[in-house]
Amino acid sequence: MASSPERVLPRHAEMSQFGVRDGHLLVGGVPLAQLAARVGQTPFYAYDRAALRARVASLRQALPPAVKLHYAMKANPMPALVAFMAGLVDGIDVASAGELKVALDGGADPREVSFAGPGKRDIELRQAVAGGVLVNVESMREVAPLAAAAAELGVPARVAVRVNPDFELKGSGMKMGGGPKQFGVDVEQVPALLDAIGSAGLAFEGFHLFAGSQNLKPESICEAQQKSFELALRLAADAPAPVRFLNLGGGFGIPYFPGEQHLDLRPIGDNLAALVARAASELPQASLVIELGRYLVGEAGVYVCRVLDRKVSRGHVFLVTDGGLHHHLSASGNFGQVVRKNYPVAIGNRMEAPRQAGASVVGPLCTPLDLLADRLDLPDGREGDLVVVFQSGAYGASASPQNFLGHPACVEVLV
Amino acid sequence: MASSPERVLPRHAEMSQFGVRDGHLLVGGVPLAQLAARVGQTPFYAYDRAALRARVASLRQALPPAVKLHYAMKANPMPALVAFMAGLVDGIDVASAGELKVALDGGADPREVSFAGPGKRDIELRQAVAGGVLVNVESMREVAPLAAAAAELGVPARVAVRVNPDFELKGSGMKMGGGPKQFGVDVEQVPALLDAIGSAGLAFEGFHLFAGSQNLKPESICEAQQKSFELALRLAADAPAPVRFLNLGGGFGIPYFPGEQHLDLRPIGDNLAALVARAASELPQASLVIELGRYLVGEAGVYVCRVLDRKVSRGHVFLVTDGGLHHHLSASGNFGQVVRKNYPVAIGNRMEAPRQAGASVVGPLCTPLDLLADRLDLPDGREGDLVVVFQSGAYGASASPQNFLGHPACVEVLV
Repeated sequence: MASSPERVLPRHAEMSQFGVRDGHLLVGGVPLAQLAARVGQTPFYAYDRAALRARVASLRQALPPAVKLHYAMKANPMPALVAFMAGLVDGIDVASAGELKVALDGGADPREVSFAGPGKRDIELRQAVAGGVLVNVESMREVAPLAAAAAELGVPARVAVRVNPDFELKGSGMKMGGGPKQFGVDVEQVPALLDAIGSAGLAFEGFHLFAGSQNLKPESICEAQQKSFELALRLAADAPAPVRFLNLGGGFGIPYFPGEQHLDLRPIGDNLAALVARAASELPQASLVIELGRYLVGEAGVYVCRVLDRKVSRGHVFLVTDGGLHHHLSASGNFGQVVRKNYPVAIGNRMEAPRQAGASVVGPLCTPLDLLADRLDLPDGREGDLVVVFQSGAYGASASPQNFLGHPACVEVLV
Repeated sequence: MASSPERVLPRHAEMSQFGVRDGHLLVGGVPLAQLAARVGQTPFYAYDRAALRARVASLRQALPPAVKLHYAMKANPMPALVAFMAGLVDGIDVASAGELKVALDGGADPREVSFAGPGKRDIELRQAVAGGVLVNVESMREVAPLAAAAAELGVPARVAVRVNPDFELKGSGMKMGGGPKQFGVDVEQVPALLDAIGSAGLAFEGFHLFAGSQNLKPESICEAQQKSFELALRLAADAPAPVRFLNLGGGFGIPYFPGEQHLDLRPIGDNLAALVARAASELPQASLVIELGRYLVGEAGVYVCRVLDRKVSRGHVFLVTDGGLHHHLSASGNFGQVVRKNYPVAIGNRMEAPRQAGASVVGPLCTPLDLLADRLDLPDGREGDLVVVFQSGAYGASASPQNFLGHPACVEVLV
């Protein structure tokens, strides 16, 4: 449908984290066609070390030095990337014993690893105690197996309490606190849990609050951090030991869809500076931790697939590729999105070619859900072209049904 | 929220495909707790041979004997199940070279295997020719590599034409025909494709039409079959050889959500009987084929996970299990559903216990998307209970992001 000339449609935020040379996108400084040749196949994910480094550096600059940065590896558990991130950040957050193994293999310091999850199995709790990492306790149920593991192994069970606060992170993609939730322990029940932790002799270290994720409103993030800090102060009164660890969560979003903008870190840095100052007097032994997954890695990654066929059906152009929702469920719009919107997509070997009206990029699967771009303005695609999906460093390969329809697995490279 | 007493809420269709003994669901005749012990872990999927056999038998009874039944293995590619189905049905439909391997390993007769997909790679086309299976051509692009493979290998390239019709299957869960589509070749372009197939010396065998899937309205299915038959008749006039194979698609749905009923096969059988009679005079060499995936296997499977914790948050009961969206994305509502609805769910070791108001069944993942049942009436769950998700034989394990968050893979058993 034609839009009236004066109406400006929302556009994707600029994707400037990668360079372009001779029309080719550069990932890790390598022109895309050369990178595809090095990988030896399409489709693949590529993550750019320089972009990861730059993102951590920009956070270090915007946030007070006293704030610790943790990487929530659920966003991207590729072992080489986790090992690389372990060298850049102050700690790694894991969500399963499987992730714990990857973090420790990658060289993360167990003292700076924490483990959260609403359904931890007994064997996972035992693995965490044996690994010497911090467990974010999310249920009264976890106390007994943690105490048993500590007694059996002769090592302390290091714990923090994950709190389900009585407020939400407003405007989040995902709400993970407030109201009835499976995450953490309702703030009303925390004093009883702290009491049980003290009685069981677990090594209490602090609190974990996580109100929501994928938020692009700095004022909402600041408000949640403020409230989380106040709540932790209140709860600290009942704690069996001083608070040394206070995880204020994350929630920093990245722009995926037309009209979304990059998050402004300045107000968040100012807010955290104020909290650091208060913590110095009110929780003098506590480190403040920010836990980020998507924000650290999401923009540093691309998904790359190849055009197999340019098909015109009833006047509409379909670029049929070898990649699709089996590798990148989120970009297809099938992972927690109510209304499907396009990720930023480009033809990576013709970045400077003029864009034409509305082509669709689809995958090889026999389902109309297999859609990577719906009527997006792209250069006229040809067989052999490399389609790039930006903002693909988080919740990509590991969050996709790779076995669906029996196509080859994708490859992931860190460049 | 309380509903007014006179309002009857829609309910799930009865799940009577499995027996119950002493309160335990029987899958393959085995009580669920014993089956879980045999599998050796939760979570798992279990598929019931007797239920698969009964479903095929009921179709054979309802449809005319001349109609061939194909299994579209994309619905469930578990190798043991595909091999079992190969012994029950008349052919297997595959969607990739990966699926082709499983079908042939499972003993499917290559003469009765067909391969469809909008983005077939050249190597896949060559594998199909070498395997002696029928390729559903979906683009003019496929003709040249098929001809090259046939010449090189010295075997015929058996082809049918997948047609994108000029009508839709009304009321389908997924529309796969009508309007601009990546599937098949627009009916307007079919004569030119038939001409190219003839010129290239490919072995033309017929047509494939597939208008949509997951349809619970017999009248819509009958109408699509009628129109598909008429369309094939029209197109046959331009074909380089007589039509021997006419795949009228499938689209037979199963009841997932409250208020949905089992599909009435009778009108479909009557309609097909009329088409068989017409085919005898109008397309005398043609076999009519119905291609079904979900309808054959969906109701024969359950997903089983174990309650790790019964958690009460602000008055709401959460059964936290070891299974979730990483194994069963569809049941979480994140696979092509606009509005999340509950699959039928039960406590499989207490099938006859009284149900109480609104508990939620969640998984171990750190995301609110990890929801297997939202405020469903269930017996009061306890740690160790076995949660059963019915209607899980199709688009379950293979359609889920099993690597998400690093939890153990699920196991699949055929019982």
